[in-house]
Amino acid sequence: MSDTRLIGPVRIVGAGLLGTSIGLGLSAKGIDVILDDTSPANLTLAVDYGAGRLPVQGDSPQLIVVCVPPDVTGRVVASELAAFPDAIVTDVASVKVPPLAELTASGADVSRYIGSHPLAGRERGGAVAGRADLFLGRPWVIAGHDGISYRRGSAIDDLVLDLGAIPIEMSPEQHDSAVALVSHVPQLVASLLAGRLVGAPAASTALAGQGLRDTTRIASSEPELWVQILGANAASVVDVLRAYRDDLDGVIDALERPDAPGARRALAEVIAAGNAGVAAIPGKHGQDRRYSQLVVMVDDKPGEIARLLTEIGQAGVNMEDLRLEHSPGAQVGFAEISVLPEAEPRLVAELEARGWRIAEAGA
Amino acid sequence: MSDTRLIGPVRIVGAGLLGTSIGLGLSAKGIDVILDDTSPANLTLAVDYGAGRLPVQGDSPQLIVVCVPPDVTGRVVASELAAFPDAIVTDVASVKVPPLAELTASGADVSRYIGSHPLAGRERGGAVAGRADLFLGRPWVIAGHDGISYRRGSAIDDLVLDLGAIPIEMSPEQHDSAVALVSHVPQLVASLLAGRLVGAPAASTALAGQGLRDTTRIASSEPELWVQILGANAASVVDVLRAYRDDLDGVIDALERPDAPGARRALAEVIAAGNAGVAAIPGKHGQDRRYSQLVVMVDDKPGEIARLLTEIGQAGVNMEDLRLEHSPGAQVGFAEISVLPEAEPRLVAELEARGWRIAEAGA
Repeated sequence: MSDTRLIGPVRIVGAGLLGTSIGLGLSAKGIDVILDDTSPANLTLAVDYGAGRLPVQGDSPQLIVVCVPPDVTGRVVASELAAFPDAIVTDVASVKVPPLAELTASGADVSRYIGSHPLAGRERGGAVAGRADLFLGRPWVIAGHDGISYRRGSAIDDLVLDLGAIPIEMSPEQHDSAVALVSHVPQLVASLLAGRLVGAPAASTALAGQGLRDTTRIASSEPELWVQILGANAASVVDVLRAYRDDLDGVIDALERPDAPGARRALAEVIAAGNAGVAAIPGKHGQDRRYSQLVVMVDDKPGEIARLLTEIGQAGVNMEDLRLEHSPGAQVGFAEISVLPEAEPRLVAELEARGWRIAEAGA
Repeated sequence: MSDTRLIGPVRIVGAGLLGTSIGLGLSAKGIDVILDDTSPANLTLAVDYGAGRLPVQGDSPQLIVVCVPPDVTGRVVASELAAFPDAIVTDVASVKVPPLAELTASGADVSRYIGSHPLAGRERGGAVAGRADLFLGRPWVIAGHDGISYRRGSAIDDLVLDLGAIPIEMSPEQHDSAVALVSHVPQLVASLLAGRLVGAPAASTALAGQGLRDTTRIASSEPELWVQILGANAASVVDVLRAYRDDLDGVIDALERPDAPGARRALAEVIAAGNAGVAAIPGKHGQDRRYSQLVVMVDDKPGEIARLLTEIGQAGVNMEDLRLEHSPGAQVGFAEISVLPEAEPRLVAELEARGWRIAEAGA
């Protein structure tokens, strides 16, 4: 097909969620995809799913994408570099310093390797969860290094763009610090908080609101994978965690003597810094706070939400975000709708005219 | 009206969000509501909104609800007890030990006082945000104590039930420990995490995903109110925070020597404890994990979500939860829909038959 940047063949090593999804995405664009996996069962499954074909003698891939767990990524990349001396090799592990360090230390030809990392997480893995469109619109970090030329590195850009993702260039060190801050530390903070709920009286957890649910949602992640990720990025994670602990110590000090001079101010500064931090997250919930929220009360019966959203559609308003919230057993739920501020007054008027109860509106 | 438990009049002191909402809810049921506030402007506004009437000489309320900030609650309750010697008095502050302790210490007649706390938070306050249905289906803690008789205390139950809330009885100490765990510590944990993002490179925060957004959402809360709440519940909050810090120290130790014996196991146990903690939260995201999720891809244009939900409604399936997620600038979003597990296969089949792309399905 004419709309691809890559020429192919592309060899994918590791037929899990990411490998299968990359294979499905490239195959759908007509690129010749070669799949390989140490597990014959995984490999057959991914081939059956249409993610690519089995390897044959004499394959000469343009690009190799290593999609194996973080702790074996360096070793597999090294063996691919050795086995295919004309290919460019990348990997998709969620840490970027350790594979490059391991390759450099082992004397591998890193002039043909650039690590990368698609930020397209899912809660479940495996070939059966693979989707051709998994990377659509997601950031995909390309962690360049001085040992590879611009021309060779461009094959990785082509891969990212052919899969519909957004290439973001940063060094391996920048990448590992960034994911420590925005992904690995949040995971630990959420897990530690949720861990405090173990053994709590049921009457206490019965008071949980949406705030606790949101703050602990990612604490349901899989331990095996996270131990690998955290172990591989330990240094960057510890840097952030130490600063976090210092801040936490300040809060504990203030709360131990809440009436001491400066204690209230210290607490206020922590909450205010949190306000500033949320505002620093780009996108719908951050930065320019460009959306207005309104909360509409919805009876808990089939078709009510659909009717609401049909009527929003009829008003010609595009929702930017939507959340439905209801308490177990309650007869009424709340739909929190985010829209552009200029659309809000009209939408409120239209919905109220149709008999909807607006529980809350405003920026 | 015949469907109320309270007889009235009910006197409400403090015409902010909660006071105005209680007044609106009771007035709507035909109960005589007397409003009072130290600010004449606030008071007039709440009366204009229909939340009640101005006080007159000779008012003899059945029940008084004190809805003022936590730091003045004890003092206002004491003056109400003295001014209205036949009335039962409650308050709605988000801490329950300090007001009772202050009243007992001051020699007030606590045989006519029980504190309470409606868990019906909103991000914005003030009379203009008041809603008659604010408490519908929400938990409302009644923090009983031995100094008040069952008969007298029942007026507070009547208040809670008349407003459509769910009464939950616990001691002031149990309440303050519970909200420290499920509300105050999560607030601090989220604020401290978000605070770490201040000054981070934009390239780092550009990698933020839904996990970070969820974990830090409540960090946008108002500092002034939180300083009061945290100061008033300092002892209970510190208890939880110290245990949290101990767990955090364990993680830091493990990450400082990730290859030391036991380090990986320590990390795995933290993540696994987080899994167990999330499962301990009752309701839609917790305990029995009774819903299946499916993720449907939706083009980012008006009417698409409405069409999706109309078609879900036509399939006769009731959504239990719904979230819409899309990356800024992406042409496609994801609707995450929770349904009862038995409804999922049919819904997937119906949606796929209508051309929707299911990005993910399963429990």
